[in-house]
Amino acid sequence: MSSNPHAAVVGAGLVGCLAACMLESRGWSVDIYEAREDFRIPSNLPTRARSINLAFSARGIEAIRSIDSDMVDRLLQQVIPMKGRMIHSPEGGLNSQPYGLDGERINSIDRNLLNQSLLKEASKRSNINIHFCHQLVRADFDERSLYFRNSKNQEEVHVKADLTIGADGSYSKVREQIMRRSRVDFSQEYIDDLYLELSIPPGKDEVTGEPTFALDPHHLHIWPRHSFMLIALPNQDKSFTCTLFAPFTGVFDQLEPPKSPQEEKKIIQFFETHFPDALGIMDQSELIRCFQENPRGSLLTIKCTPYHYKDKALILGDAAHSMVPFYGKSSQGMNCGLEDVRKLSQLLDNRSLSLEEVLEKYSSTRHQDLVAICDLAMGNYIEMRDKVTRIDYVMRKALDGFLAKSWFLRGKWLPLYTMVTFRPDLNYSEVVKREDRQSKIIKWMFRLTTTSMLLGLVFTPRYWSRLSKMLRD
Amino acid sequence: MSSNPHAAVVGAGLVGCLAACMLESRGWSVDIYEAREDFRIPSNLPTRARSINLAFSARGIEAIRSIDSDMVDRLLQQVIPMKGRMIHSPEGGLNSQPYGLDGERINSIDRNLLNQSLLKEASKRSNINIHFCHQLVRADFDERSLYFRNSKNQEEVHVKADLTIGADGSYSKVREQIMRRSRVDFSQEYIDDLYLELSIPPGKDEVTGEPTFALDPHHLHIWPRHSFMLIALPNQDKSFTCTLFAPFTGVFDQLEPPKSPQEEKKIIQFFETHFPDALGIMDQSELIRCFQENPRGSLLTIKCTPYHYKDKALILGDAAHSMVPFYGKSSQGMNCGLEDVRKLSQLLDNRSLSLEEVLEKYSSTRHQDLVAICDLAMGNYIEMRDKVTRIDYVMRKALDGFLAKSWFLRGKWLPLYTMVTFRPDLNYSEVVKREDRQSKIIKWMFRLTTTSMLLGLVFTPRYWSRLSKMLRD
Repeated sequence: MSSNPHAAVVGAGLVGCLAACMLESRGWSVDIYEAREDFRIPSNLPTRARSINLAFSARGIEAIRSIDSDMVDRLLQQVIPMKGRMIHSPEGGLNSQPYGLDGERINSIDRNLLNQSLLKEASKRSNINIHFCHQLVRADFDERSLYFRNSKNQEEVHVKADLTIGADGSYSKVREQIMRRSRVDFSQEYIDDLYLELSIPPGKDEVTGEPTFALDPHHLHIWPRHSFMLIALPNQDKSFTCTLFAPFTGVFDQLEPPKSPQEEKKIIQFFETHFPDALGIMDQSELIRCFQENPRGSLLTIKCTPYHYKDKALILGDAAHSMVPFYGKSSQGMNCGLEDVRKLSQLLDNRSLSLEEVLEKYSSTRHQDLVAICDLAMGNYIEMRDKVTRIDYVMRKALDGFLAKSWFLRGKWLPLYTMVTFRPDLNYSEVVKREDRQSKIIKWMFRLTTTSMLLGLVFTPRYWSRLSKMLRD
Repeated sequence: MSSNPHAAVVGAGLVGCLAACMLESRGWSVDIYEAREDFRIPSNLPTRARSINLAFSARGIEAIRSIDSDMVDRLLQQVIPMKGRMIHSPEGGLNSQPYGLDGERINSIDRNLLNQSLLKEASKRSNINIHFCHQLVRADFDERSLYFRNSKNQEEVHVKADLTIGADGSYSKVREQIMRRSRVDFSQEYIDDLYLELSIPPGKDEVTGEPTFALDPHHLHIWPRHSFMLIALPNQDKSFTCTLFAPFTGVFDQLEPPKSPQEEKKIIQFFETHFPDALGIMDQSELIRCFQENPRGSLLTIKCTPYHYKDKALILGDAAHSMVPFYGKSSQGMNCGLEDVRKLSQLLDNRSLSLEEVLEKYSSTRHQDLVAICDLAMGNYIEMRDKVTRIDYVMRKALDGFLAKSWFLRGKWLPLYTMVTFRPDLNYSEVVKREDRQSKIIKWMFRLTTTSMLLGLVFTPRYWSRLSKMLRD
């Protein structure tokens, strides 16, 4: 690397801002190019983007801490911690399921708030310049050239960069430009479900009249209904942001944007049937407005490999891996994207590697983890929608908790959710391997227990020696 | 459909030309837009594209016959029939393996010759207009608008079309434009191997001095060498077009475009070691020139679904499904692409369906067949490179031949290659199902025979009754 290298980061989202800070800390001069207007100015935010919020958890926190520990402290002042899921039954029953073994939390935060904060952190740094309204049109990485269109004056802007970081989301233009130049395996797969953002307004304290949370704010609320579900995350203004995930056929095709009082009634009836307690705390006219105006979003999985082009370009975050948003809402995608930056940073620590070797190594080592989390997110989609209410799932969860807290397995036995969400020291692919092993042990224990009971041999020394040997391996 | 509908076909390749003829026969007016210059004029052909040839077989022939039976007769006058594979061992030994049960052939033809012929057939038709040097820039299908750049004068051309047919190859722009508008599952996956086109010149008759074929022209010649292979197909001028398929690592990285006599020697030595009989009939300076000038091509599988957008656009051929070229060289991709047109034509026969219903039905019914052939092509890649020399493969082939020709299974038992290549009446997905069943029966026969022999029970009535019952089902 020559002295004072220069990077262009395409996209001023969460991952782009963190990548810029990380490179700047390492002596790079960085320009961030963002297609949107300056979203630190509230009036520039599109209305519909205001409400989306995220579950910010250990991998994201650890990634930011590794680059700037003060920054992460400032960000954590803006979150609402959630210690578990609250499952709402159709009859209005509640069931709290803690996320962690020792009260670990995930943190609800407005996506725009988090993005604004990260952008402010980036703009404080002396060697980072931010350019809004710059849409990437094409790139010639070999010539170190990027061409943007300035949406304010429609002029084409030509810039030079030693390294381009593509943090420009699922429909990444940087990825497209890499794919034109080199052999990239790529897949995108939509799931049948769509999502729609709704909201629950703050309630009113009966005594003081102050706004209060209408639901327990320290839970991520879930209304699982097999083929569809509603979730709610708390906001600092004491409202909740809700998301309805449902297939088009059977749900959204029956609940099209209402144009008549009859169609509006149909939506209210749908909520009365399936989410009566949520409906009770919603503002019905706001609910109708959401169905009329908010878009039905698509959900897809994107995988690709490799992530880089020579020593010239690299994609991070959603540009490299889009996952369905079912590890604590859209959060694991974001937490994983931030972790991409930490992993890249760790490889840059190795001064004996050239930049091209760093990028090659990033592509080759990160891929198995990104495939693992994309697949886990798809698996958790099924879990949240359906399995959380099933007896075998609840029993497995209880057994996981018991084993994880038992004195002889403490720190060795880890529930899947804990590993994914609270253990940034474990790579996602390692998580999958450990979980596979744990599942096998449970199956084996179950079989052995059943057999032993049948033979009247429970608690024989042989059972315990085999079990403890297996657990120690 | 309104009277006199108008279609734009993007791409004047084999599939585009046939699709245009098919629609014209049904009363459409058709414009074909092709990015290249008019390739009916030989000087417009890029040098390196001259030599590529294809194995034109029953599915392609049947597809063209279904649209114009005279056309197929004219095309078949230009081919060289090949009745089998000729396997060349490293020691120069030859082994002929017939393709069909009853002398069926596949047909070697120069890709450009076939394309020119199809283009001439299309241009004869009164309601087809062909526009060269027109590159699709973008489309607005809902407005029925397509925007091309004319590469002669750089002007943008705006045209209208009720239906756009994208027959624009693996890197299809029509597909990209459909993917921008609707949810398309898509994957592309490269294999490690690259390919390089080489050639074998005509020999000379010892008596008359006339040019002759240097190898038997009625075979597709294969030099399988486990991790790499060479193949050769005959041309009408009595030369052969060869293709070397090999991984980058271990072969092509050792055989870079030669820049010194030493590097040239390395290539000759590689051929001396692995393909001595082929080297003996090659022109060594031409071989070196090929290694210096011909590109190393990439090979990939592309799958996507759906293939259409409303009643506005449809992709066919490589744009919809790219497969590795290992069913009789790049042929099955081409034969399958031509079959796409026949399948679409059959659906258009059903007058009770609207155009949108036809395209929906095409997408939903054709997908399983296209996935099946992409997967079969990948499987045959392994077979041609490696398995053709193995004893179990040769035994299975012999057994297939025996069963297929036996009086009690005639027409019922069909070898996989026969079904894929010679039976356009069987859909690819049906082919896979039948082959799975046949493999199971063979495994069962093998196991039963072994067991029976062990028990001294061979030829008991029970064996034969079970076997014949199973075969009759």
